[in-house]
Amino acid sequence: MSMPQKKKRGELIVLSGPSGVGKSTVIAELLSSRRDIHFSVSFTTRQPRTGEADGVNYNFVSREEFERMIAADELLEYAEYVGNYYGTSLKVIREQLDQGVDVLLDIEVQGAAKVRERCPEAVLIFLIPPSIEELSRRLHRRNTDEEEVIQRRLEKARQECRECVRYDYLVVNDAVVSAAGEIQSILQAEQSRTQKRLHLAESIIGQD
Amino acid sequence: MSMPQKKKRGELIVLSGPSGVGKSTVIAELLSSRRDIHFSVSFTTRQPRTGEADGVNYNFVSREEFERMIAADELLEYAEYVGNYYGTSLKVIREQLDQGVDVLLDIEVQGAAKVRERCPEAVLIFLIPPSIEELSRRLHRRNTDEEEVIQRRLEKARQECRECVRYDYLVVNDAVVSAAGEIQSILQAEQSRTQKRLHLAESIIGQD
Repeated sequence: MSMPQKKKRGELIVLSGPSGVGKSTVIAELLSSRRDIHFSVSFTTRQPRTGEADGVNYNFVSREEFERMIAADELLEYAEYVGNYYGTSLKVIREQLDQGVDVLLDIEVQGAAKVRERCPEAVLIFLIPPSIEELSRRLHRRNTDEEEVIQRRLEKARQECRECVRYDYLVVNDAVVSAAGEIQSILQAEQSRTQKRLHLAESIIGQD
Repeated sequence: MSMPQKKKRGELIVLSGPSGVGKSTVIAELLSSRRDIHFSVSFTTRQPRTGEADGVNYNFVSREEFERMIAADELLEYAEYVGNYYGTSLKVIREQLDQGVDVLLDIEVQGAAKVRERCPEAVLIFLIPPSIEELSRRLHRRNTDEEEVIQRRLEKARQECRECVRYDYLVVNDAVVSAAGEIQSILQAEQSRTQKRLHLAESIIGQD
């Protein structure tokens, strides 16, 4: 066994789910009760939607700037999705985790697979809709996309749900508060994992 | 992927921890808020302590009867501990799990290892004291054992804590309510494990 850890390392939490499942709402609910979690703001080349702010929802950058970050290996993961780049800054995440801060990433399935490769200890959570009909209703209600785009997103959603087997947990977003509560239980339980608490047992074995 | 499960199978939960850690109190607290959990009453050959009732704390049986059960392969696990047998009835557990009932076992480390072999999907939780001094205080306060027995239990406790690496989770019993709450979060999180929810994703992929 290793020596007792002086400082707890932060937990890297990955949340994925098909477009329209309600990830942003669940994240907002979660962060309102777990203010100690740092939400990692992704970089993207897509256009801001109405109400989205730079540095809050995303760091909006040009395609040129994004490709520079790829070349400089500044990204933990990145992926292209419906014609746009999305990515996560490695530097920011690493600093937070080292300081013991839990970091939440909102990324899609390709990105999550890359995080799993680089950080096997990350906790991967997949948010699924109660049904594909409900997902369709939510996408139409959002009223930001053309019908063709919605249909593409629904097909993409089905594909993404096939990838959920790579995740540690599946949470159904039936009601926002209970989905966020379920994620809280997951994070609490992950804190109790034996591998993360060996130092406690060691301190007992070592005492006289 | 397999077909959608028609009926949820019960969760087999194993709770271990050194003598005096406060397992019974934590279990009572847990069961008061999770009345759907069935607590499996073990069989033992040890003498009842003051206040213990047959069929409630343990099924108290003779050494002859216990050895008959071993020979008839009626036990999921059994072990000898400080000169007495302790064991779990396989038949009762199996019926409960098949009916979708969660079953909680209070067994020691040898027994837990046997459960892990036979039921790899069981959730193994180890309850540890905040320190060995606190455990010593609790054993003395209980006032049921001779000093020599207490010293033997403390040495045994150190040995058992070395075995905690075989468990999925470590919960510190610092305060009963928070320890029971932590176990509740673990059980909630286990419900969200992808392997146990694949049927939900399948129903989404399968829909048109």
